Amino acid sequence: MPAVDIAIDVGGTKTLVSAFDEKEVEPYSSEEFPTRPAEGIDSFFERLSNICLRMKGSRNINRWGLCTAGAVSPEKGKLIWSPNLGWKDVELFKRASSFLGTEGVIENDCNAAAFGEWEFRKDIESLIYVTVSTGIGMGMVVRGKILRGASNAAGEIGHTIVKADGPLCTCGRRGCLQAISGGRGLEIRAHDSLGIEIGTKEITDRAELNEPVFKEMITEASETLGRFLCNLIDSLDPSVLVIGGSLGKNRYYFDRILKTIEENYYRVPGKKVKIELSSIEPNPNILGILSLSRKTHKD
Amino acid sequence: MPAVDIAIDVGGTKTLVSAFDEKEVEPYSSEEFPTRPAEGIDSFFERLSNICLRMKGSRNINRWGLCTAGAVSPEKGKLIWSPNLGWKDVELFKRASSFLGTEGVIENDCNAAAFGEWEFRKDIESLIYVTVSTGIGMGMVVRGKILRGASNAAGEIGHTIVKADGPLCTCGRRGCLQAISGGRGLEIRAHDSLGIEIGTKEITDRAELNEPVFKEMITEASETLGRFLCNLIDSLDPSVLVIGGSLGKNRYYFDRILKTIEENYYRVPGKKVKIELSSIEPNPNILGILSLSRKTHKD
Repeated sequence: MPAVDIAIDVGGTKTLVSAFDEKEVEPYSSEEFPTRPAEGIDSFFERLSNICLRMKGSRNINRWGLCTAGAVSPEKGKLIWSPNLGWKDVELFKRASSFLGTEGVIENDCNAAAFGEWEFRKDIESLIYVTVSTGIGMGMVVRGKILRGASNAAGEIGHTIVKADGPLCTCGRRGCLQAISGGRGLEIRAHDSLGIEIGTKEITDRAELNEPVFKEMITEASETLGRFLCNLIDSLDPSVLVIGGSLGKNRYYFDRILKTIEENYYRVPGKKVKIELSSIEPNPNILGILSLSRKTHKD
Repeated sequence: MPAVDIAIDVGGTKTLVSAFDEKEVEPYSSEEFPTRPAEGIDSFFERLSNICLRMKGSRNINRWGLCTAGAVSPEKGKLIWSPNLGWKDVELFKRASSFLGTEGVIENDCNAAAFGEWEFRKDIESLIYVTVSTGIGMGMVVRGKILRGASNAAGEIGHTIVKADGPLCTCGRRGCLQAISGGRGLEIRAHDSLGIEIGTKEITDRAELNEPVFKEMITEASETLGRFLCNLIDSLDPSVLVIGGSLGKNRYYFDRILKTIEENYYRVPGKKVKIELSSIEPNPNILGILSLSRKTHKD
């Protein structure tokens, strides 16, 4: 019986587990369950273990990969901290390998997605992946290597300040990128200025229908993000910038980001940055961490 | 007779050549001459060759390195373009190796300086070097590798736009980082608003003496640069950020940049970025390119 590869994406709300036949990139089975981080680490890993063991059935696990938001140190095998989970200093590799075996990798979720997008495209020098949904995150791969930073905190762009005295962010500071351009930030600002509960999808839909208040919000959000991405492009000169996440992949929003980038990035001879929508469906985190585990642990 | 290592820094105005005994980091001889790029590439290389041959005397050249501003491709051996020199598509390696031999390297000047600063510090993961003088540039080294970008244009932060509808830049666009925070930008703005010709040094001196108009200029310049550097720190999580260049090393200006960074960068558990003044005197470009040539061509 062929062995199984397992890929796990631990989100603040839900955890997705996918099982793959060797060499396949379509999972033969996927299951989602509530992460419930507040119930504690032991509880989470017990539930995760049960699901993985049920999914693999009587087959052996060949390789596995697990990714999550926050600072992950593959060198130390640890989750240093995670804002979404509220966990700190977790022996992520040790805990997962206790039921998945030692042929595994752990990684930050945006780094995993960036690696997946980089692998998917052939022969590119470097790639920046930016996810825009509730919050905003980034991963970067240069010549096949993930840029993790000195404290495994590279890519934490959601809370970088892009507007002095800008709108209040959930982190307590003002003018963070995701407070202006992320989904939760848009929802909070709609609530604060209009007194209504409205989801990100409806905000972009109503902007597209030319309702002035929403159009203005999306214009500010997309221009702010587009200008910030120009700073990244000018500083790092990537081959490709990939935009993913539910809000980033909204065509109306994406087109506006693209317009700002095209109008503002610094053009020099020979520089040809491509701006692309995420091409990995449905989940670049899962396929990225799968790809990373296969690359790390070769046959 | 011991062989000689030659390091060359080609600037828009002046070119510096330093000759070193093997393994030494103090040059036994240095000469500076006007670059005069408008006289053409052949003229420049003839003058450079004469000086190098005179400096080496009867000794053999062991290794050499040449750096300059703009997009340099060590892979292709070419200067792709240089804003300061006005040159495009120059066979830099071939021309230099015709009189210096083949044991050489060519590199962008900020990349060379970043490599020098990285080598100088022991055991750090990554380093960003930012030079602030007439213009502003950046180089980054991660685990000993220079980040050059897909088009060798990484680090071209001088013309990234940080303020929509900001002051006019020499490049014709508005709100470029160096139009607000670079020396030439400060001088132009002093001229435009006060109608006086005043150098960068006098602007910072008079700001330090609390003259309101200059103090305001330096406050805006240092806060703008400091906030941009926070975006870089949050995005890239370097071990050390080094600030060099004549304006960047001005203590009054540097302290204000540092204050903005300390107040604004995104603090997460375990992240400990150090902000330091360039520690390589007098010229990190020269010692960086020397170090790079020695690392590339080992005995």
